[in-house]
Amino acid sequence: MTAPRPGRRPKAARWVDEVYQGVIRTGFRLERRLFLGRSPHQRVEVVETAGHGRLLLIDGMTMVSERDEFVYHEMIAHVPLCVHPRPRRVLVVGGGDGGTVREVLRHPSVESCTLVEIDGLVVDASRRYLPRIARALAGPRSRVLIEDGVSFVRRTAERFDVVIVDSTEPCGPAKELFGPAFYRDVRRVLADDGIVVSQAGSPFYELGTIKNLLGILRPVFPVAQPYLFTNLTYPGGLWAFTYASRGLRPVADLKHGRSRGLKGLSWYSPAVHAAAFVLPAFMERALGRRSS
Amino acid sequence: MTAPRPGRRPKAARWVDEVYQGVIRTGFRLERRLFLGRSPHQRVEVVETAGHGRLLLIDGMTMVSERDEFVYHEMIAHVPLCVHPRPRRVLVVGGGDGGTVREVLRHPSVESCTLVEIDGLVVDASRRYLPRIARALAGPRSRVLIEDGVSFVRRTAERFDVVIVDSTEPCGPAKELFGPAFYRDVRRVLADDGIVVSQAGSPFYELGTIKNLLGILRPVFPVAQPYLFTNLTYPGGLWAFTYASRGLRPVADLKHGRSRGLKGLSWYSPAVHAAAFVLPAFMERALGRRSS
Repeated sequence: MTAPRPGRRPKAARWVDEVYQGVIRTGFRLERRLFLGRSPHQRVEVVETAGHGRLLLIDGMTMVSERDEFVYHEMIAHVPLCVHPRPRRVLVVGGGDGGTVREVLRHPSVESCTLVEIDGLVVDASRRYLPRIARALAGPRSRVLIEDGVSFVRRTAERFDVVIVDSTEPCGPAKELFGPAFYRDVRRVLADDGIVVSQAGSPFYELGTIKNLLGILRPVFPVAQPYLFTNLTYPGGLWAFTYASRGLRPVADLKHGRSRGLKGLSWYSPAVHAAAFVLPAFMERALGRRSS
Repeated sequence: MTAPRPGRRPKAARWVDEVYQGVIRTGFRLERRLFLGRSPHQRVEVVETAGHGRLLLIDGMTMVSERDEFVYHEMIAHVPLCVHPRPRRVLVVGGGDGGTVREVLRHPSVESCTLVEIDGLVVDASRRYLPRIARALAGPRSRVLIEDGVSFVRRTAERFDVVIVDSTEPCGPAKELFGPAFYRDVRRVLADDGIVVSQAGSPFYELGTIKNLLGILRPVFPVAQPYLFTNLTYPGGLWAFTYASRGLRPVADLKHGRSRGLKGLSWYSPAVHAAAFVLPAFMERALGRRSS
């Protein structure tokens, strides 16, 4: 060890921290800020980190890191798409970074994937700074609409086999995505075998949010259940999606053969799919009713 | 909003952070420090946090928080104890906080649980500041030995049905617990149906550590596999244990009836047990060979 020379003090590490519920923070070692913009909806930021590649943050919440985004995107996309016997038309609400669309388009049966993102700035920043995640948005099977997903599902005459609600937390522009009117509209735009999957929050910190969302889904859909994944970037690691459908069951109706065409996955497999619907005891007690 | 009065500036939040591999940090909102001591082995610290109860830290690494310690302790204890047909004698190496012993003693068949902890300061601090975790150490079926676990298993003439290696990371006093000589000794102290479970590290950040540990276990034990859990306090959330045995398979030999006697669990169930052995695709590829 040598003493630091005067005037040459080593720079202290800088961190980009997400403070969550005022009690826990997750910080990534910052290399440099690449982009900071403000849209009418929110603050959008892209940073380069020392160990996690690039991060996209919205209003200070980490949305994706290049290092582990595969977990979230594989689990939100392949769970419904591997249960559905032949998904052709898919709608993604939110998800402007493009990672969900990228995973959806791995399925050869998909003819078109429509992304409805309220904030064009998220799409623009992702296209420019996160090309490995956003690249699928430019493909011939992708359609990108910059508009409010809530009003889109209210007004559209189109029908979809799978709807994926890839949103932030239930605050700001995403609030209505956690309401009952939205899910009645989702049911209307779903084809007969339709499935809807939604980001649902943290089982440790927001069990109430997950419970509320299930309480909204269960009167509208005959099948509604949470499932789990764990990643590096969301506070506490463990996080939940909800699965709801007009009839297809998430585990019993999974035909293992359907996922065989998927190549290059890092997280998803049919066994991981089934295991994700197994809930820890405290969730089982709080959320009740299973029908996997 | 009123402007802060001069001399009455609101105190900034204080955090107790664990920096991991220099690239990620997990911080808990600090209320106050309760204990800081230095033993010949390490620095031992107990703090009160705003949202996670009390935390025990060793050399700056979070060992347990009162809020979520149930996950780790239920998964390290009930997995081997529910596979073993009749566990009577259990050895815990490390785990001076007492949480693992508490879970072991939920099993009525257990006649004695021996804790061998190298650092008496961990046991003393836990007894004083974490009584809900450490209380089982005082029970009639518990034996607490303050000595090096490595030399204990080398010298003892006792035999155990289950050995649980509840250690910190492979550095400092825990280093030898990740070596081949230790596991040959563990095999010797295990009874015929014996099972050993060990803390193994983070799949995202330390896949090499898990691979090394399996590489040490597989020549010594006919069955050796990782399994997963996720909690709030270890960096990245997702963490692994290894399961190894003289023959009992972790899922195929689990008799669901065996766990029925357990009451008041918050995480473990037979379904959670089986799901924990399902590995994400990237681990499956890196670690190969399954025999659950």
